[in-house]
Amino acid sequence: MSDFRDAARNGLSTAELETVLREVGAERYHNRHPYHHRMTGGDLSKGELQAWALNRYCYQAVIPRKDAMILARAEDPAFRAQWRKRIEDHDGEDGWSGGIARWLHLATSLGLDAEAVKSERLALPATRFAVGAYLSFCTNRPLLDAVASSLTELFSPIIIGERVPAMLARYDYVTEDTLAYFTRRPEQASRDSGFALAYVLKHADTAERQQAVIDALVFKCDLLWAMLDALQHAYGEAGNIPPGTFRPEGVR
Amino acid sequence: MSDFRDAARNGLSTAELETVLREVGAERYHNRHPYHHRMTGGDLSKGELQAWALNRYCYQAVIPRKDAMILARAEDPAFRAQWRKRIEDHDGEDGWSGGIARWLHLATSLGLDAEAVKSERLALPATRFAVGAYLSFCTNRPLLDAVASSLTELFSPIIIGERVPAMLARYDYVTEDTLAYFTRRPEQASRDSGFALAYVLKHADTAERQQAVIDALVFKCDLLWAMLDALQHAYGEAGNIPPGTFRPEGVR
Repeated sequence: MSDFRDAARNGLSTAELETVLREVGAERYHNRHPYHHRMTGGDLSKGELQAWALNRYCYQAVIPRKDAMILARAEDPAFRAQWRKRIEDHDGEDGWSGGIARWLHLATSLGLDAEAVKSERLALPATRFAVGAYLSFCTNRPLLDAVASSLTELFSPIIIGERVPAMLARYDYVTEDTLAYFTRRPEQASRDSGFALAYVLKHADTAERQQAVIDALVFKCDLLWAMLDALQHAYGEAGNIPPGTFRPEGVR
Repeated sequence: MSDFRDAARNGLSTAELETVLREVGAERYHNRHPYHHRMTGGDLSKGELQAWALNRYCYQAVIPRKDAMILARAEDPAFRAQWRKRIEDHDGEDGWSGGIARWLHLATSLGLDAEAVKSERLALPATRFAVGAYLSFCTNRPLLDAVASSLTELFSPIIIGERVPAMLARYDYVTEDTLAYFTRRPEQASRDSGFALAYVLKHADTAERQQAVIDALVFKCDLLWAMLDALQHAYGEAGNIPPGTFRPEGVR
């Protein structure tokens, strides 16, 4: 497995850079993670699916904030007008009619209490630290790196395509209504990641900037991976649920 | 187990607040974590001890930075003069003669390469996110909360007292020289935590501020706990080492 740390050492053509970015996804995106495989294999308990939905909510909830941070740092009105759509997608017309609301619906359809999910109080600390790292990254790193960290969306149609049919087939309490969040995501993600990829390929015009955007995508893959690691450790085996966090029904 | 979230609802006396803070430590400090128990029980492999030293280095390395952030936010020169000692302790006279250097010595004594440790490149992403959360907390939260987050030091003489004799007794490659870092820590930690506790007890003068300092200490305990969770998940069982991170010798 490559670690991609010298991938741009000698400078890359635009096509080569795109190839490397897609290789990062092929090797490091979280559709390679055991928790995802257990999910699509029908092997997660209901408590594990609930824990996934509850923790992932924290990630969903921060997306419009990290996008607003990118917006705040972008000087080009045309860029902002395009990037703004992401915020609209997640917040919807009134804050609770977009992607966040649909994720909340997923969580409550799995039997979780809406207020408990929204409060984020029962999420794993490791989830909160990862989500905080994403917001910090988009706040503190160059705009180009922040844009590049969104490129995991290039691969999200793949994971959604694996996840949705498998969940419908293998968990009798999961319905199309439960998973309504995912209906619009592939189209939105394709539009958004296409724009972001074109931006990155255009602006990563030195070997150093190319390496920075590769590193940004690796960082983001590591982040999604770490979120599933934390779920697997806490809920995949007995007795590792950290103090003060979500305990599925029937788990002491 | 209490979650301490309403502990100060009706306001606490100074003595009661101190009692609650010490209860947080008794219930949530990482001397309760299985990885620590495995360490003191002699059950960690050398690779697991190396992984602990390598990851914990990232935490050690950020301490003077988070303390500098606290210093930067403190308006009282007398407070700053006291708090500054923490930075001196960790950086030493020339940057590499204090606690960080002694931790690096611990890591290299366990067979790790100094440059690899210092680069932090092989640390678990979860470690980096936790450490980043600590720096963010001390940057963004009220000064009082940042000070309170240091109060885990109240309990560090306990964990050091458990760790050092057990490590010397149970790992034949661990010597007093390896563990030189810990020689001065109990005294420094007692001085520092005494000052911080007095500050917190004096300034947490509303129920809301009392709850905030309790929450800050819980946050910090969660952070130390999450760091050991990540180690346990990655190195305690086979096959969970995240991509691109430290692999002990002989581990595929």
